[in-house]
Amino acid sequence: MQKIRIGMIGYNFMGKAHSHAYRDVPFYFDLNVEPVLQTIVGRDEDRVSAAADKLGWLSYETDWRRVVEREDIDLIDIGTPNHLHSEIAIAALEAGKHVICEKPLALTLKQAKAMRDAARKSGSIHMICHNYRFAPAVQMAKRLIESGQLGEIYHYRANYLQDWLMDPQYPMSWRLNKEISGSGAHGDLMSHSIDLARFLLGEIAEVSGMMKTFIKRRPLDGTAPGDGEEPQYGIVDVDDASAFLATFENGAMGVFEATRFAKGNRNANRLEVNGSKGALRWDMENMNLLQVYLDEEKKNGLEGFRTINCTEEEHPYAGAYWPSGHIIGYEHTFVNLVYELLKGIETGRNPAPDFEDGYRNQAVLEAVEQSARTGRWVKLNV
Amino acid sequence: MQKIRIGMIGYNFMGKAHSHAYRDVPFYFDLNVEPVLQTIVGRDEDRVSAAADKLGWLSYETDWRRVVEREDIDLIDIGTPNHLHSEIAIAALEAGKHVICEKPLALTLKQAKAMRDAARKSGSIHMICHNYRFAPAVQMAKRLIESGQLGEIYHYRANYLQDWLMDPQYPMSWRLNKEISGSGAHGDLMSHSIDLARFLLGEIAEVSGMMKTFIKRRPLDGTAPGDGEEPQYGIVDVDDASAFLATFENGAMGVFEATRFAKGNRNANRLEVNGSKGALRWDMENMNLLQVYLDEEKKNGLEGFRTINCTEEEHPYAGAYWPSGHIIGYEHTFVNLVYELLKGIETGRNPAPDFEDGYRNQAVLEAVEQSARTGRWVKLNV
Amino acid sequence: MQKIRIGMIGYNFMGKAHSHAYRDVPFYFDLNVEPVLQTIVGRDEDRVSAAADKLGWLSYETDWRRVVEREDIDLIDIGTPNHLHSEIAIAALEAGKHVICEKPLALTLKQAKAMRDAARKSGSIHMICHNYRFAPAVQMAKRLIESGQLGEIYHYRANYLQDWLMDPQYPMSWRLNKEISGSGAHGDLMSHSIDLARFLLGEIAEVSGMMKTFIKRRPLDGTAPGDGEEPQYGIVDVDDASAFLATFENGAMGVFEATRFAKGNRNANRLEVNGSKGALRWDMENMNLLQVYLDEEKKNGLEGFRTINCTEEEHPYAGAYWPSGHIIGYEHTFVNLVYELLKGIETGRNPAPDFEDGYRNQAVLEAVEQSARTGRWVKLNV
Amino acid sequence: MQKIRIGMIGYNFMGKAHSHAYRDVPFYFDLNVEPVLQTIVGRDEDRVSAAADKLGWLSYETDWRRVVEREDIDLIDIGTPNHLHSEIAIAALEAGKHVICEKPLALTLKQAKAMRDAARKSGSIHMICHNYRFAPAVQMAKRLIESGQLGEIYHYRANYLQDWLMDPQYPMSWRLNKEISGSGAHGDLMSHSIDLARFLLGEIAEVSGMMKTFIKRRPLDGTAPGDGEEPQYGIVDVDDASAFLATFENGAMGVFEATRFAKGNRNANRLEVNGSKGALRWDMENMNLLQVYLDEEKKNGLEGFRTINCTEEEHPYAGAYWPSGHIIGYEHTFVNLVYELLKGIETGRNPAPDFEDGYRNQAVLEAVEQSARTGRWVKLNV
Repeated sequence: MQKIRIGMIGYNFMGKAHSHAYRDVPFYFDLNVEPVLQTIVGRDEDRVSAAADKLGWLSYETDWRRVVEREDIDLIDIGTPNHLHSEIAIAALEAGKHVICEKPLALTLKQAKAMRDAARKSGSIHMICHNYRFAPAVQMAKRLIESGQLGEIYHYRANYLQDWLMDPQYPMSWRLNKEISGSGAHGDLMSHSIDLARFLLGEIAEVSGMMKTFIKRRPLDGTAPGDGEEPQYGIVDVDDASAFLATFENGAMGVFEATRFAKGNRNANRLEVNGSKGALRWDMENMNLLQVYLDEEKKNGLEGFRTINCTEEEHPYAGAYWPSGHIIGYEHTFVNLVYELLKGIETGRNPAPDFEDGYRNQAVLEAVEQSARTGRWVKLNV
Repeated sequence: MQKIRIGMIGYNFMGKAHSHAYRDVPFYFDLNVEPVLQTIVGRDEDRVSAAADKLGWLSYETDWRRVVEREDIDLIDIGTPNHLHSEIAIAALEAGKHVICEKPLALTLKQAKAMRDAARKSGSIHMICHNYRFAPAVQMAKRLIESGQLGEIYHYRANYLQDWLMDPQYPMSWRLNKEISGSGAHGDLMSHSIDLARFLLGEIAEVSGMMKTFIKRRPLDGTAPGDGEEPQYGIVDVDDASAFLATFENGAMGVFEATRFAKGNRNANRLEVNGSKGALRWDMENMNLLQVYLDEEKKNGLEGFRTINCTEEEHPYAGAYWPSGHIIGYEHTFVNLVYELLKGIETGRNPAPDFEDGYRNQAVLEAVEQSARTGRWVKLNV
Repeated sequence: MQKIRIGMIGYNFMGKAHSHAYRDVPFYFDLNVEPVLQTIVGRDEDRVSAAADKLGWLSYETDWRRVVEREDIDLIDIGTPNHLHSEIAIAALEAGKHVICEKPLALTLKQAKAMRDAARKSGSIHMICHNYRFAPAVQMAKRLIESGQLGEIYHYRANYLQDWLMDPQYPMSWRLNKEISGSGAHGDLMSHSIDLARFLLGEIAEVSGMMKTFIKRRPLDGTAPGDGEEPQYGIVDVDDASAFLATFENGAMGVFEATRFAKGNRNANRLEVNGSKGALRWDMENMNLLQVYLDEEKKNGLEGFRTINCTEEEHPYAGAYWPSGHIIGYEHTFVNLVYELLKGIETGRNPAPDFEDGYRNQAVLEAVEQSARTGRWVKLNV
Repeated sequence: MQKIRIGMIGYNFMGKAHSHAYRDVPFYFDLNVEPVLQTIVGRDEDRVSAAADKLGWLSYETDWRRVVEREDIDLIDIGTPNHLHSEIAIAALEAGKHVICEKPLALTLKQAKAMRDAARKSGSIHMICHNYRFAPAVQMAKRLIESGQLGEIYHYRANYLQDWLMDPQYPMSWRLNKEISGSGAHGDLMSHSIDLARFLLGEIAEVSGMMKTFIKRRPLDGTAPGDGEEPQYGIVDVDDASAFLATFENGAMGVFEATRFAKGNRNANRLEVNGSKGALRWDMENMNLLQVYLDEEKKNGLEGFRTINCTEEEHPYAGAYWPSGHIIGYEHTFVNLVYELLKGIETGRNPAPDFEDGYRNQAVLEAVEQSARTGRWVKLNV
């Protein structure tokens, strides 16, 4: 069986999630290629070495450039902070590697375009890691919309709510620094909401947005108060929350909100769709459940949202796992995604979401930012 | 329009609920009879006089016997403690009055039988006040079961959970005294669960039960500790909780529990039914909602419990109230019941649940008590 | 006891809801004034006469002007289509009557200002009928926010979702005609969401909005297809849906959406608030429930949204009704509101929401409309 | 690092679940021993060989006796049909192997006692695979009860509802044959409910039970109707559903139900506990959520069940996985269990639940069966 030898750049949260997916995918799915956890990359040798051991990689490196050049690597997986995505991805594509890149694709639309163009030019498989598409319930939602069972779509409503950043003592990090992250909740969370919207409804035509930073400076790590000393502060120059109104190309109306300041919500990635004949609701915190409303042929008092536990054989990906009613979790969105990636490499057919999707996503992100700056609606133009 | 002149015995919780229903019913429903709140009865003149004013009765009395004899009374409504039900009801029936009686019908099956016999002999309309049947969602449940949409019924599961009695300092009351109340949670709550089960599935054939008293003595009212004095205690000789297993005549299996010691539950009167083709769930705390599961003709990934807000025109009684989605509350179960009662008087057709239902309900209560005493299954024999 | 003699203008949905509230309020609340259902007004004599009978009014009139002049009327209740609010309210205030007016206050901000000014000049009590404030759960939400238990508020999120207008065959009505209704979902539903937001968080400073009309013409009533004849159509010149982004004066971020095209939602009037220390969620379809999240003093694994059934004695208005866990319904929001209205008349202290609130609400409505027209943010300036 | 070489007997549903857990545990947890998937056993060589490949075992065998004797095996994992548990487990223990055995422990209490005695005599680590204990939410429930935060426990309420067996055309299988499975829903599902109850509340003292078989014969596999031929039937001699009432040694009251005929429920393993100061609810279908009710020090209108997503660092096992709000699934209950098993082997301290637990569980199962046969309460006597 053909081996797909992977070089993973980054070993933190996403490094762990991706590593696990590569390990798990052959257990659950049938593939004619075999993922090999060849090498993992990080700048701090002690830490990346420990990560390699823990996560199951055969070797480690401290410079991503070396890995991109290595002949024994087929697939580069980019799980770094955002400012490195573009450089690494383009180098990897030019080196003939397949590439999967964490979201958002880049810091700017210009960077994203360069990446998309490099991907087009290459013969490689390329994906952006919008894992939430791969929850069985979201795939089921797609199936319902595409089949026309919801009719013409009028409304899309999304909010992605987290609260991990609300403590004013939470220290500065790369995620709060525009040069490294590009934006805050906007690129981190809203990009996921945009991906789900594009996946389910198609392109967004026009947006009006706003962005807020509630806590504008934060203590630098390691300078927390003590012994009467003043902490030192870093400036937060990204958004804590963003929101936008939208019109989709198909005429539907969209309302989006993403925030790290929604106390009580750990990872509430929620969406609702209302069509002329039906509706659906989904929330990542109960990711196996899809709520679906369907008009009855004739009113009979039986209309209501049904709560479907998307763990049946009939549900996308669910047959690979456990019997009905035995739920899967967050990590399996990555397993499903990695299955599509490897299947893509196996068959030569590029799976979605790819760098084109990442580029169009970035276009929406940037349009919202521009609208928030100018106070005016912005038309998408990609 | 014919006036139905009512004599209400009792002015506390049930007195309030019934009074309100009589006032409200002509507003929502079309009837050819008109309820008149003629007189209300209580032993304490000051309090019953105040209640008459507050609840809207034209007069008051302090002796129920006088009211039963009054010619200007058509309907006796018995909302007293349980030990008086039998005597008042029989006297009222013999005096030619229509009668509605709070649940449980009586202290004992023997009393209940006498009441049922008196009702049969009379030409009067008689009802027992099992108001929960009259939630639109429960009526909808009945319609689904009767229509065969759930198929053959295998399981009935009910629990009626309250927690108002859990504080050990809660004083003795008539509800904790067997001579006055007959039983505790059993007659108070379980009788409702039995009524719903009989309404939805039919007769119970056999039971095995248990009863528990968790707090066996309670301070007498007005003797709470203070000034170093010891409170005086009364003996609780009724159950705080009861439970039973059952076989229904149709072969279904039943599991029932009723308790005043289920911390966190104020009035969780819940039921579930599972049939060969579908299922349903209901809880009085969200009384407008009915959860319904129906097999699809062909498995398609859309099977799940739907949550139906029973406020549509298609739902029983709901058309009398507000547009879809505008919920009704506890008190409307009484309005619906009283509508049936008055309609019964108007048409001469006795509505359910009547004294026969009350009697059969009492038979189940007593069978469970007997089973709890003897540790053996008891067959119903009515 | 002083009688408050009411003249009710309008006898349809709101006429029914208000009539019921006047009938019910003395039963549940203690007041030193007594509402008298003196006269009800409608242009169609047969129908208003029938309504007077059914709803319990002592008399009827066919011209609102006569009622405003009648000496035996203390309070004018305006439940007409929106285009009449202004003229009736001003006439009534000038005639020295107390006034309660359905929402939205007027067709335009200019009208609303004239009404507000007339109210200020009068010595009368004036209210706008935003009944949803008066759900016990909403009052409880207010208490939590005001007490500081949620900390500094960052986010307000509201959507008011209905679906009764989605059938393209649903005929034209006054609600779809801008001259009579002013706007569509915007004035009808969004005005409620704005009222709840202003009640809970205070004034809105700035908005960016959008409005959509999905179905732009509808058959005129009575011209439905048949016999090969073409139906005749009327033009829908109001919105089917509106949405806006907002900044509150206190710095919080707001996202609002109101629509009559959200299939599956009958009356889902939902709101969420996130503060620095806690959060809450509410939905009118389960109006008794308030979900509240509160930080624990120290993380202990017990943090989560609690679902509070606002039927305890501790909850606003709830003590007037039934024991814990016995829910109330839609109509009780009006009973509570009318209690405040009558209490206001009794004490001479004007209750909220009054015509000033109606005016400020209208200012937000109009700012959103202006923003939707111009594609720019609009600052509130009232 | 010490290797723990595993011999897995059985390769179907439980074989898959256990295999995955052994593969996953080193990724998530830190251990000083290393599980090695040494060999897997099945009678059908083609199928077990394929399973070994798919599930990641180094070798396979077709006779469990050979594996028990192999020197290169440290741990025997028994995932066979129930009638083999006893023989294999005792042989393995006598051969000095550690043993983990699927539930129920045995066909009969006598067998279970022999297994327990063999385990006691051995120096081996032994566990019974009640994986649901290992959901973080269940462990959190245990912590709450043990800490006294729920006060004295009055009520335990459990139902384990499945519906996979309801189609009368579902063919005979070993699970429906008493000689192989011992019982039906009773041993399969109820044993889990009993384990959770014993884990959370302690020993059961007395039971009254019932058992039902709704469909008494089923087509033999491969004899489904066709070509006018009659299918052949096998006799179902186990229960489709069982239920029992119980008293716990601590005085609490228990109500239990387990069924494969609860249409609409795929794997609804639910429990509720009510104590004097608090309560909790859990359902395996939403296994990450624990609903907890706690009395407030002083009634303040904030009492309600909170829904805790047990994915915080503070929650048992949760720190090993993903950030807050990122849920885990069914398979992770096995990962957690296997972690405890390996930790036990590492430290020499036997983890719970062990064969003593399996034996006591069997005693409850058998007491319920005896009660169902005799129609009388049965006291536990172990």
